[in-house]
Amino acid sequence: MKFSDIVTQLSPESHSLIDNPHLDPDLQGITPIQDAIAHTLSYIEGDKFAKMVVETTASALILPLDSTLQEQATKKGLAWLSSPYPRLTFAQALNLFYQPFIPKPQIHPSSVISDDVVLGKDVSIGANVVIQEGVKLGDNVCIYPNVVIYPHSVIGDRTLLHSNCTIHERTQIGQNCVIHSGAVIGAEGFGFVPIKEGWYKMPQSGYVLLEEGVEIGCNSTVDRPAVGITRIGKNTKLDNLVHIGHNCQIGQNCAFAGQVGLAGGVTVGNRVILGGQVGVANQAIIGDGAIASAQTGISSNVKSGETVSGTPSMPHKIYLKVSAMYKNLPDMYKAFRQSKKQES
Amino acid sequence: MKFSDIVTQLSPESHSLIDNPHLDPDLQGITPIQDAIAHTLSYIEGDKFAKMVVETTASALILPLDSTLQEQATKKGLAWLSSPYPRLTFAQALNLFYQPFIPKPQIHPSSVISDDVVLGKDVSIGANVVIQEGVKLGDNVCIYPNVVIYPHSVIGDRTLLHSNCTIHERTQIGQNCVIHSGAVIGAEGFGFVPIKEGWYKMPQSGYVLLEEGVEIGCNSTVDRPAVGITRIGKNTKLDNLVHIGHNCQIGQNCAFAGQVGLAGGVTVGNRVILGGQVGVANQAIIGDGAIASAQTGISSNVKSGETVSGTPSMPHKIYLKVSAMYKNLPDMYKAFRQSKKQES
Amino acid sequence: MKFSDIVTQLSPESHSLIDNPHLDPDLQGITPIQDAIAHTLSYIEGDKFAKMVVETTASALILPLDSTLQEQATKKGLAWLSSPYPRLTFAQALNLFYQPFIPKPQIHPSSVISDDVVLGKDVSIGANVVIQEGVKLGDNVCIYPNVVIYPHSVIGDRTLLHSNCTIHERTQIGQNCVIHSGAVIGAEGFGFVPIKEGWYKMPQSGYVLLEEGVEIGCNSTVDRPAVGITRIGKNTKLDNLVHIGHNCQIGQNCAFAGQVGLAGGVTVGNRVILGGQVGVANQAIIGDGAIASAQTGISSNVKSGETVSGTPSMPHKIYLKVSAMYKNLPDMYKAFRQSKKQES
Repeated sequence: MKFSDIVTQLSPESHSLIDNPHLDPDLQGITPIQDAIAHTLSYIEGDKFAKMVVETTASALILPLDSTLQEQATKKGLAWLSSPYPRLTFAQALNLFYQPFIPKPQIHPSSVISDDVVLGKDVSIGANVVIQEGVKLGDNVCIYPNVVIYPHSVIGDRTLLHSNCTIHERTQIGQNCVIHSGAVIGAEGFGFVPIKEGWYKMPQSGYVLLEEGVEIGCNSTVDRPAVGITRIGKNTKLDNLVHIGHNCQIGQNCAFAGQVGLAGGVTVGNRVILGGQVGVANQAIIGDGAIASAQTGISSNVKSGETVSGTPSMPHKIYLKVSAMYKNLPDMYKAFRQSKKQES
Repeated sequence: MKFSDIVTQLSPESHSLIDNPHLDPDLQGITPIQDAIAHTLSYIEGDKFAKMVVETTASALILPLDSTLQEQATKKGLAWLSSPYPRLTFAQALNLFYQPFIPKPQIHPSSVISDDVVLGKDVSIGANVVIQEGVKLGDNVCIYPNVVIYPHSVIGDRTLLHSNCTIHERTQIGQNCVIHSGAVIGAEGFGFVPIKEGWYKMPQSGYVLLEEGVEIGCNSTVDRPAVGITRIGKNTKLDNLVHIGHNCQIGQNCAFAGQVGLAGGVTVGNRVILGGQVGVANQAIIGDGAIASAQTGISSNVKSGETVSGTPSMPHKIYLKVSAMYKNLPDMYKAFRQSKKQES
Repeated sequence: MKFSDIVTQLSPESHSLIDNPHLDPDLQGITPIQDAIAHTLSYIEGDKFAKMVVETTASALILPLDSTLQEQATKKGLAWLSSPYPRLTFAQALNLFYQPFIPKPQIHPSSVISDDVVLGKDVSIGANVVIQEGVKLGDNVCIYPNVVIYPHSVIGDRTLLHSNCTIHERTQIGQNCVIHSGAVIGAEGFGFVPIKEGWYKMPQSGYVLLEEGVEIGCNSTVDRPAVGITRIGKNTKLDNLVHIGHNCQIGQNCAFAGQVGLAGGVTVGNRVILGGQVGVANQAIIGDGAIASAQTGISSNVKSGETVSGTPSMPHKIYLKVSAMYKNLPDMYKAFRQSKKQES
């Protein structure tokens, strides 16, 4: 693809063709800046950029709106395009080159599909997929091999279910969702009532609802509740190995990093970001736009817009000060002991 | 179902039919109190109750033994039943309305079953299940689609194996167990002996034993040991994404919440409760009835009956005091610095 | 197997046949010392040994190079062999008795294999395995039932893929690797660019490369990057439920315990040991031979050879002192408050 084609398709705020219309390299792909090769487009984030522009062997670069970097690239004979959101432009450029693997519409003869399943137009059902009674698939649904769907689930248009994931009974999955390999959606919540003999199992009669555009990472689990719904809002994205307990109500456009765990009945607003391995206790409420750093332990509520860290969680600004103190504790304790001695 | 039928079946300690024998609504299901609709039975836990009784649109309620709430419900024209254990009564009531999906006895023609497998009466073996040589299944065992059982495992009567779970060689699973989707039972423990060239793999010749009534959550893993047994005692329940290392010995009636991890050789007594994301170090011993709060890091032993929190773990009462101090550290350090200056 | 055969095969530094050539028990297996029975070989690590030697009912023992223990064993009429690395000797002895389950070369008729797949010599492909277009399998590759391999992946000689694992597109797995049940290798990295409407999905055009001898635990996940490679070096071993983010570069001979999580772009040197539930932040760099204790939160770089603990991570020696101080915080705060009062 010619550099000029990329410029035409992405319409960047600025680019090198304005001053150098004849510098129009043929680009065969996108490479990471540290391994960039000729005839590729490259990009790097953050301050390491300046040095990389001078060193790279890429033929073209995605730059931020930075005239110094633009001049350096021009001087080096590189084509470039500049964007106020270079990471977004990088993603858009990747989409020009990269086509993810999505099988063509087909129903593999080895799949086992209940007679009453309702299939939309142009669905793709891979080898050894099992779809049980009363399931409905929307148009262009794509189910990779070895997926199992339990009875009476609904899968929205254009949703992808990757291999070895399991969708349990009555789950409702919206349009344009992606369920990654090994994820389990809608299994029984962890509900046991303590009795004299041990535990009485709470029946889990509810279901999981994923709104449109939700993405669930590999081997993550979203449990259904005893009654009612476990809900994940529109466009919320979960990374791998995340656990969402029964009855959680999660808003829109959230992002939870790997190994996050939410206990039962947690309420999460919109645009909430949870770092890796964050844990949230039963019934906690997290407001819109809140952020938690990795490994934060949230045992009570977090206000809208707040950034929290630490276990137990506290405002991030305080955490930075507090955690910087830990290393002083032994000296502080020594002084405390001495003053105690002097007193007595 | 008539309210009076529910009363008959659950025999609650008190109920509204005594004073209002004609208030006997027809109930079509159970709904969560916040979304309750007419002609349903509802229930909520804890102190939010009082307000909810006045507001709810449910037709009947499960209440604790609280005369104020009972009077409020009566005044509102609601049928009610009261129990000293309202959560247990709620679970029992759910069982009157909700029938979990369990397939009928059948052996799906797409399953691949070794010739020498011993099948109990009325087993259900779903599509694409693979059962390898020397396996024994008890009566009424139910295996959902796409499960794999490695050789010489034994599955007890009425045990359920959900889709995409894997049972490794020689595993012994007792009666009335539930293995949830994606769980892996009896895979090789993580054993590598450091040698000059890297690692020497320790053969894992032992096996996993799950006693009766054990439940293993989705995508959880229980490893087998080099020699001997990894054992989980009767009626112990594990939530999702829990890791149990090789050679752990876990007692009866325990409950481990999501993402708990036990390293190798941990000994756990009976009725132990571990909160979410708790980690337990190699060879630690946890006594009967101990409790650990979420994210606790247990690096040594915990006494019977003790409640611990924090990393490293300490008695919960001390942890509450200690963790409340963190935010004061910067001020304390300032004072410490000043007194140091004055001294010098 | 005669004790003398074991001695011949393992060539231990010292053994009881030298003084007692006629004490040559027939050994039928290896048992853990606490459950040892007659006609078995046993072994235990660490200081608990002395007592065990006197008590055990095993017929032969693996001992460290400790003349007291040797004499005790001799006195008790036990055969023994001594090694400077008794744990390694134990592993080697286990290999004499234990043969792991590896199916014979075969291609199960229920497997679904794309026409253009290249198969090495003597491969074993289990029931319901799905292998998609352009995949290449080396010699003696063994694929257990219900595995799915996405297009254009390469699996090296003698590598084992356990049941229900998923290998995503373009993944390169070296020779002698083991991918345990439920693991997911090469799925899309967690890349979403924030935009006004929510998130723009970053295409994930890169791939995962596992060098030879890598072992990936059950239900662990290794993600592919937007561009370039996520790499795990030769002989590195991951335990269960580990998450490796996109673009991580991990060296050789590392060992990561259960539930470790690495965010994106982490660089890890050789021979690095991470304890259970350790979390590592984006772009962190961990030097050769570094060690992190369980639950450590690594948010910045760790130097070669350093041992770190705590969140945020600090040198382990300091952590030991610091964490021992926590319990004193309430008393220290009380003193701080009093001195404040006196000042004012």
